[in-house]
Formats: sequence, C-alpha cells, structure tokens
Amino acid sequence: MMNLFNKGRVETFSDGIFAIIITLLVLEIKVPYVANDHSAAELYKAILGMLPKILGWMLSFFTIAVIWVNHHRLFKQFRNLDNGIFWWNAVLLLWASFIPFPTALLGDYPSNPFSLIFYGLIMALMAASFSFMRFYVLRKPDLLDESVDIDSFRTGSRMSIVFGPAMYLSGIAVSFIHPYLAFAIYLGIPIYFIFSENKAAKQL
Amino acid sequence: MMNLFNKGRVETFSDGIFAIIITLLVLEIKVPYVANDHSAAELYKAILGMLPKILGWMLSFFTIAVIWVNHHRLFKQFRNLDNGIFWWNAVLLLWASFIPFPTALLGDYPSNPFSLIFYGLIMALMAASFSFMRFYVLRKPDLLDESVDIDSFRTGSRMSIVFGPAMYLSGIAVSFIHPYLAFAIYLGIPIYFIFSENKAAKQL
Amino acid sequence: MMNLFNKGRVETFSDGIFAIIITLLVLEIKVPYVANDHSAAELYKAILGMLPKILGWMLSFFTIAVIWVNHHRLFKQFRNLDNGIFWWNAVLLLWASFIPFPTALLGDYPSNPFSLIFYGLIMALMAASFSFMRFYVLRKPDLLDESVDIDSFRTGSRMSIVFGPAMYLSGIAVSFIHPYLAFAIYLGIPIYFIFSENKAAKQL
Amino acid sequence: MMNLFNKGRVETFSDGIFAIIITLLVLEIKVPYVANDHSAAELYKAILGMLPKILGWMLSFFTIAVIWVNHHRLFKQFRNLDNGIFWWNAVLLLWASFIPFPTALLGDYPSNPFSLIFYGLIMALMAASFSFMRFYVLRKPDLLDESVDIDSFRTGSRMSIVFGPAMYLSGIAVSFIHPYLAFAIYLGIPIYFIFSENKAAKQL
Repeated sequence: MMNLFNKGRVETFSDGIFAIIITLLVLEIKVPYVANDHSAAELYKAILGMLPKILGWMLSFFTIAVIWVNHHRLFKQFRNLDNGIFWWNAVLLLWASFIPFPTALLGDYPSNPFSLIFYGLIMALMAASFSFMRFYVLRKPDLLDESVDIDSFRTGSRMSIVFGPAMYLSGIAVSFIHPYLAFAIYLGIPIYFIFSENKAAKQL
Repeated sequence: MMNLFNKGRVETFSDGIFAIIITLLVLEIKVPYVANDHSAAELYKAILGMLPKILGWMLSFFTIAVIWVNHHRLFKQFRNLDNGIFWWNAVLLLWASFIPFPTALLGDYPSNPFSLIFYGLIMALMAASFSFMRFYVLRKPDLLDESVDIDSFRTGSRMSIVFGPAMYLSGIAVSFIHPYLAFAIYLGIPIYFIFSENKAAKQL
Repeated sequence: MMNLFNKGRVETFSDGIFAIIITLLVLEIKVPYVANDHSAAELYKAILGMLPKILGWMLSFFTIAVIWVNHHRLFKQFRNLDNGIFWWNAVLLLWASFIPFPTALLGDYPSNPFSLIFYGLIMALMAASFSFMRFYVLRKPDLLDESVDIDSFRTGSRMSIVFGPAMYLSGIAVSFIHPYLAFAIYLGIPIYFIFSENKAAKQL
Repeated sequence: MMNLFNKGRVETFSDGIFAIIITLLVLEIKVPYVANDHSAAELYKAILGMLPKILGWMLSFFTIAVIWVNHHRLFKQFRNLDNGIFWWNAVLLLWASFIPFPTALLGDYPSNPFSLIFYGLIMALMAASFSFMRFYVLRKPDLLDESVDIDSFRTGSRMSIVFGPAMYLSGIAVSFIHPYLAFAIYLGIPIYFIFSENKAAKQL
C-alpha cells in the first residue's frame, strides 16, 4: 500500500519525457554547408538533399505522438501504479527516449538496410514494453480501474502484440527485400493508429 | 465520448513542447573561435559578427511566445478535445518544433534569399495549422465552450488566415525583392500580436 | 478582463523554461580528447583543464536557481497577470534562456575580459527585466495580491535595481581592473541571495 | 512562515529537471561515420562498437529513474520545505544534472580507470546530497509529515549513507583493481534499488 506510486506524478514525468523526445528530434537536423552562401539555388539543393532526414524526423514525430496517445489511454485504465508497472513504464521510456538515435541513423543512412533494421528493432522493443506492461497488469487485475472490462483489456493486450512488436518485426523482415518496404510499414503503423476507427484506437 | 482526450493533459503536453522549443533555440548559437584567446577586441568582433544569428534567435523566441499565447487563447474556447483537434494540434506542434532548424538556417545564411523563403514557408505551415484547427471546430460546434460566440469565432478564424499564412506568404513574395523586406514582415507579425489591441488579440 | 492570462499556466510555462535552461547548461561541457585513451593520468589532466568551464557551469546553475526562487516569490505577490506582466516576463525569459551562451563563452575564454563583460551584460539585462516588471506593476497596483503591502513592494522594487542590474554593471566595471574581480562579484550575487536573511530574501 | 516554498512547485521543477536529464543522455550517442554508406555490415559493426556507450547510457538512465523514485519517496515525507531543504535539493539537482557529462566520458573512455573514478565521484556527491538533506531535516523534525516515524526516518538516513556515497566510493576503490569491477558496482546499485524488497525501498 505504502509502496504505491502517485499516478499523477508518474504521468507528468512520462509526459515530460515524451515532450522532450519529440522536440529533441529536430536537433539532429543540422544546417547544411554551401560553398557560395549567397546562392539560393545551392541552399535549396542542399535542403532538398536533406529530405530523407526530414521525412525520418516526421515519421518519428508522429510515432511518438501515437505512443503518447496510447500511453495516455492505457494509464487511464489503471487505478494504481505499483513497482511493477512503474518499472515496465521505465523500460518503455528507455526505448522511447532512445528514438532520436535510430531516427538520426535513418536520416544519415536512408538507403542502408541496417539503419532500417535497427530502427525497427528499437521500435519493436518499445512496443513490446507496452505489451509486457499490459500482461503484467492482467496478472494483477486489482490495479485496473473498476470501469475496465477485463476481457476487452485482455483482447486489447493480445492486439497490442500484433499492432506493435509483430508489425515492426515484419518491417525488419521486408527490409531484406527492399528498404522502402520497411519504411512503408514503419510509416503505416502511426498512420493506422491516427486514422483507425475510434473503437480500434480505444482498444489499444 | 470515451474517445475524448483529457484537455488538461494535452495542454500540458503542448506547453511542455513550446517551452522546450523556445529554450532549445539558443543551442544553435555556438561559441565562436578566436585565434588569440586573451584578446577582448577579437572576441568582441566575433560576437558582433554573430548579430544576425542573435537577431534571428530573438525573432523566433518572440514568435514562439506569440504562438503559445494564441494556442492558450484558442484552447480556452474548446470544451472538449476529440481526435480531430488532437491531430491538428499535433500537426501544429510538428511545424512549431521544426522552428529551430529554419531559425538556425536563417542565422547561418542571413543574406541568402532561400533561408528567408524557407523560414516563411515553415511559419506559414505552422500558422495554417491554427486555421485548419479552427475550421475543423467550426464544423463541430459542440466542441466549443458555451461562452464562445460562434459568429465571432468564425470571424476570428477567417482573420487567422490573414494574420497567419497569408502574412508569411507575402513575406516569401517580397523576399524576391529584397531579403530584408521579408525579415521586416516576419518581425512585424509577432510585434503586431504583442502590441495589437486587446480586442484584436482576443479574436485570434 | 477577458484578456487576463491564467497565472498557473504562465507559471508552469516559466518553470518549464527555467528547468530546461538549468539542465541544458551541461551540454556545453564536451568530453575532452586524449591521445592515449587508456591513460588515467592524461584524462585526469584533461578534466582538470576543464575546471574553469565546470566552475562557470556551477555559477550559472546557482544563478538560475536564484532566478527561479525570485520569480517564484514575485509571482506569488501577483493576483492576476495582464498583457504587460506577460510580455515583461517573456523578456525576462528571453535573457534567462540566453544564459547557456554567455556561460559557454565564459567557460571557453575564462581569462578574456570580454567574456566576463558579456556575461555581466546579459545578467544585467535579465535582472533589469525583474525591475521593469516590478515598476510596471507598481503603476497598476490592482494586479497585486491583497496580502501585499504596496510600500514594502516599492522598497523591494528599488532594492531589485541595486541587487540586480547595478551589481552586474559593477562587475563589468571591475572586469577592466582584473577578470577575477568580476567573476567574484558574479559569484557573490547568487551566494548573497542563498545565504541572505529570510527577510532580505523575501523583499526581493 | 512566509519564507516557505510551495512544495508542489518545487517537486514539479525537480521532476522537470529529472525528465530533461534522463532524455538528454541520448544526445551524447552520435551517429557513427562509415565509409561505404550502403554497407549494412559496416554500419552494423560501427553500432556494435558503440555498445559500451549504449550500456553506459542505460546505466545512467536507470540510475536517474532510481534517483527520481527516491526523491519522490523522500519528498512525500516532508510537510513543508524551508530554505535549507530547497538549497540541499538544488545541490542534489546540480550533481544530477551533471550526470550526462560523466556518462559521456564513460562511454568514450570505457576502459580508462579515470572515467570510472570520475563517474563514481559525481554519483557519490549526488547520493551524499540525499544524506545531507535527510540529516538537515532530522535536526528540524517539524518539517516532517505527521505520518512519518522519526526513528525509522533516522535509520533510513543512516542507511542512505551506506547504499549511496559509501557504495559509490567502494566502486571507486575497486576500479584500481579492475575497471569492470567498478562498473559492476555502479550497475548493481540501481538494480538493487529496483529489485529490493518493498520495505527496503520504502526506507530509502
């Protein structure tokens, strides 16, 4: 009892971390160097050459926004936080706060298969932390809010494996065929969450 | 109903992002290198040469402060946040969190027309997100607070196109005449918002 | 009336900015390069050579903590925030968020008189923003909380000029005699605030 | 009385700083350079070579999470904050916000004994700040919440020396035998806190 965490402070702490990650991403986009610093054409070409980096940044931006939404919706269903949830949440934040690194790697090596594999791997580990947290809570249903239906929470937890680590691992798999296929899957995941029906969004 | 967002948490998340962006800007101002590290005159000249960068930083600082005020005033008029407002807000935050990059570009290439065009473009996209959010809400007036007069909200939304994307696009247009004209317009926009009548400030 | 700001949100926004500035400072302390990467003696000497940078960081850390305390105490005395207080607060935050740059300059050029002059100048501008905000409020006493005695607020506002911009300007003046004298004054200011009597601390 | 701090705002400020530190750590992990930018094998090897840096980052991540938990639990036991607690907390935040630097040093010089000594020293200073804060409060028991048993608080304070500075100093000592022994102790400290019994966790 005494060992429970103040849910509000943990949420604020997590929100703060998500806000910082989502904003830090832009620091990896460095001002390009052009020889003739008055030439608009040269600067335009330099910025155009940075498009893969900018697209990678957008991908991670919306992915983190989706993580925030899913985190928000999951924590709403908890009545209390114990040590277990706290530390699974810390593992989730660990992988989430690592995202700027694979994002920068992807931006610098957009056509290197390994940067796509690495990106997918970190995202799969992050998404798996959500599933681990859910399955931990399923074994301690007292931690769930009364309003939560345990069966739909169980279904949502199983779904979270599919629309999380499984999707990212399939992205890794197809990256061996063509890097752009992996990119399409990584991009498809946040888009799916943003545009999916309210009902599906609620379940995750 | 179940799918609504907690307005307070979204505001805190957005405020956190604005606070981080406004503070990160300074990281782009790097300590200059001078050959004789005891010479006050050399260091003074080096800092003086950084004036365009420092002015660009101030411009973005006050622009983000104005964005924060407008965001604050707009969200005050919402009763609830649905998926649509949340994701328009995410688009707004995407462009806002990109600001450190065009600011650094402007600081490094102050006399290059393209850096002024690019700065104006990102600001126009950011400002347009405000307008899109407003027009989205106009089609779902249930999301507005009871105290809000729908007609003055509609007028404010139309004004937000003029004193937002339209102004920035006109800055882009005049940058083809002279870069400093564009800079003057970009600087004029936050100054207008800071010193404009309470009434006008309220409408936006 | 409609144009007043929500005091809590402005405080949270300001606190967020102070927390970010105080933490960003450390980013200017870069890992040194040593030729023999197994040599403890070389790395020890390299870190020792960074002592001026580390001391400059500590100076700015405690200075920002004192700014936070003074901001906290000043805002406690306001009943409402109007446009004027908000924008004077923005000017204060502008100079405060600039602090990482003069701190890095001081760390890289500890014996260059100009870096001490520049540090003092930015701090004087920051401290002057506190005084400007106070004198603005003195002309609109309705913004003060009922519990505030206007005469002691006026005395505190006058004191804020002495223990603020005046002290920093005197630091700039003595820097022409010897850089270390200026450093001693800049260090003395936060130490004075930390160890001064509760009464004096309250007045500022 | 007037001089007391608003506990909530100090907690929020401290939480903000912890959230920023824990997230900034990743900025020290830079994208590696590989000659053939299409070669997955080369990039894989480059990332593999960064493993010490990544492990150092994880170590600091979980250490800061443990600091946050301990801070959270300690502040729960305070009724009020006076100047003394505030400034001991500032000293704690000073050392905590310095952590990104020794972490980066450890990542760049993983086999240099000095980087392990330096890491242990900063952590010992940070942990000692917790103990100083506790012993300060023991002399002013009015600052403790009524629900706190002073004897168990005293025991916890003595324990905080053992499982804090003493452990880190022993890590420094064994680093003279072998760097990996120090690393094992530094890693053991957060792991101990994460997996220790609820009762022990509560005492600290």
